[in-house]
Amino acid sequence: MTNQHEGKVQMLAAYYEGDHRIVVRNVDRQPPGPDEVQLQVAFSGICGTDLHIHDGDMDARVSRPAILGHEMSGTIVAIGDDVTQWAPGDEVVVVPLDWCGICPACVSGNTHICHRLNFIGIDSPGSLQNYWNVSQRVLIRVPLGLGLREAALAEPTAVAVHDVRRSGLRSGQKALVVGGGPIGLLITAVARAIGGEVLVSEPSPERRQLISELGVRVVDPADGLAAVIDDWTAGAGVDVSFEVSGSIAGMEAAVMSLATRGRLALVAIHSRPIPVNLFQFFWRELTLVGARVYERIDFEQSLNLLHDGTIPTDMIISSVVPLAEASKAFSLLHSGEAMKVLVDCGGSK
Amino acid sequence: MTNQHEGKVQMLAAYYEGDHRIVVRNVDRQPPGPDEVQLQVAFSGICGTDLHIHDGDMDARVSRPAILGHEMSGTIVAIGDDVTQWAPGDEVVVVPLDWCGICPACVSGNTHICHRLNFIGIDSPGSLQNYWNVSQRVLIRVPLGLGLREAALAEPTAVAVHDVRRSGLRSGQKALVVGGGPIGLLITAVARAIGGEVLVSEPSPERRQLISELGVRVVDPADGLAAVIDDWTAGAGVDVSFEVSGSIAGMEAAVMSLATRGRLALVAIHSRPIPVNLFQFFWRELTLVGARVYERIDFEQSLNLLHDGTIPTDMIISSVVPLAEASKAFSLLHSGEAMKVLVDCGGSK
Repeated sequence: MTNQHEGKVQMLAAYYEGDHRIVVRNVDRQPPGPDEVQLQVAFSGICGTDLHIHDGDMDARVSRPAILGHEMSGTIVAIGDDVTQWAPGDEVVVVPLDWCGICPACVSGNTHICHRLNFIGIDSPGSLQNYWNVSQRVLIRVPLGLGLREAALAEPTAVAVHDVRRSGLRSGQKALVVGGGPIGLLITAVARAIGGEVLVSEPSPERRQLISELGVRVVDPADGLAAVIDDWTAGAGVDVSFEVSGSIAGMEAAVMSLATRGRLALVAIHSRPIPVNLFQFFWRELTLVGARVYERIDFEQSLNLLHDGTIPTDMIISSVVPLAEASKAFSLLHSGEAMKVLVDCGGSK
Repeated sequence: MTNQHEGKVQMLAAYYEGDHRIVVRNVDRQPPGPDEVQLQVAFSGICGTDLHIHDGDMDARVSRPAILGHEMSGTIVAIGDDVTQWAPGDEVVVVPLDWCGICPACVSGNTHICHRLNFIGIDSPGSLQNYWNVSQRVLIRVPLGLGLREAALAEPTAVAVHDVRRSGLRSGQKALVVGGGPIGLLITAVARAIGGEVLVSEPSPERRQLISELGVRVVDPADGLAAVIDDWTAGAGVDVSFEVSGSIAGMEAAVMSLATRGRLALVAIHSRPIPVNLFQFFWRELTLVGARVYERIDFEQSLNLLHDGTIPTDMIISSVVPLAEASKAFSLLHSGEAMKVLVDCGGSK
């Protein structure tokens, strides 16, 4: 994977250069800084945010050319002079959050949503490269026995763990997941792992088929979700709903499906204000909780769930493409055919 | 207050007859049923919902003629055959909620927002009459030493206690109250009583003047609320906001003023869906909690706060009108001049 070129060690990196262009280039491999480790990246997943970046929707935020990638697994191959707790050969994942430590969010203990958050892989270079230098403080060890392919799902699974934790879902309760993409599917798996009963609402027949194969009840919202919820909950409504669709209709379904005192976990990004039925929040004393990224505890729980086989990784990982063909990962996702696409960055065993 | 007419004991009752008409008539005084007590009503307050009914906005729900009134105080003057825990002379207030006991809300313990709630004074006859027969199970004793005039504020104060409890506000935290009417003012008093620091946003100069006199910081939203919040909270935002205005701008202010992980208590009735900035809920992991009416514990706490002088009753009660002139109470409120108007129903001492 590395080449000698003009006397320097080279490697591959995938760059977003704007307007749907992902270009893979040979670049010089740089040594880690004193506080950093160098990871040989094994797998790097592509998520919906990456797709938005690829489509140019986030050009105001993302400086170009940009190395994307924030869902990953890898192995330490070199350490900086100040690194004492890690050694070459350690298998790790990265919590891609770098916070300021002094803003109001940080000082109140919510470093994960720091007001000046550097989201690694969006605001600074990510993992779509053979070798990646990252600060030692973002590392989490991969449990012994968990494969690097599966460990690459640690980040999206941590999102789902965070969402379920924020939702307050408890064992025995019923939950509606509005949107059956990768995050909806991971939320479903995590919710079931803690004893929740889950119904998924998903318009795509292909995704419904996949979800059904997991033994999860799934409905097409066009077929009348309200009647299904009524029947399932004997008219009460669900205890928790997860709005993962990002659509007005999805938000409405998530609100109207809730039981008295039900909780709606807002997972999706609604970039513009949308009409919300606040009367229902008043009338049924509903709660809405925003859920963004994850805390370290979510990442650790995510690795546990991946390790114990709770997460149906084989169904979630639709395909794996080599780094040299990174742009293919984006087109596969665009087509709507794929659930999760991993990029093989060369460090798998 | 009672007259003999054709051999029967008569009394006054105020009827809403539709289209802004409140008509006071002599009617027969009926004895209480076996499970009921007869109250001689002392004072009955008029609230915003009564005003909406008066204006015809709730004619689909309210059968006419209707005796309104659900904020009250009074004295038991007679008891039904099955009443054993109450006696004539007892001073009481009424929790005006009658629930079914078998719907999903009731069986989950949320009887106060029963799916088939009979809100006494809206869905069944209320307290705008000299004598009122009510079930023994809706009574709460007025603490010794609390006047019946002040006790008539128990219901709106219970609303405020419930709102503050639902908001999760804790001692030392900062709260924004959007809307400085009677409920906003009561929320302010309750929030301060538990150690919260409160800022009120209120467009009316008269109401701002009144709120200032209570030693509460109040701002005109037209003067730039965001800058005031920034300055007050050193850029962090408030821990809790109360949306009491029922306006789109008020809701927006309640959302945008919140700190990371802040909580918005939705108190106002927004009868139609309005645009809500869900992105902010996601980005700052905000929580929205609906708050409707009160539970019995809120009513009991309300009476305690009225009893210990926490609630500035003299400032809240703008005027008292006799039952014979009940319609005047509505026109006073309509003019915007009054905060809370009580109707003297004859049973004050």
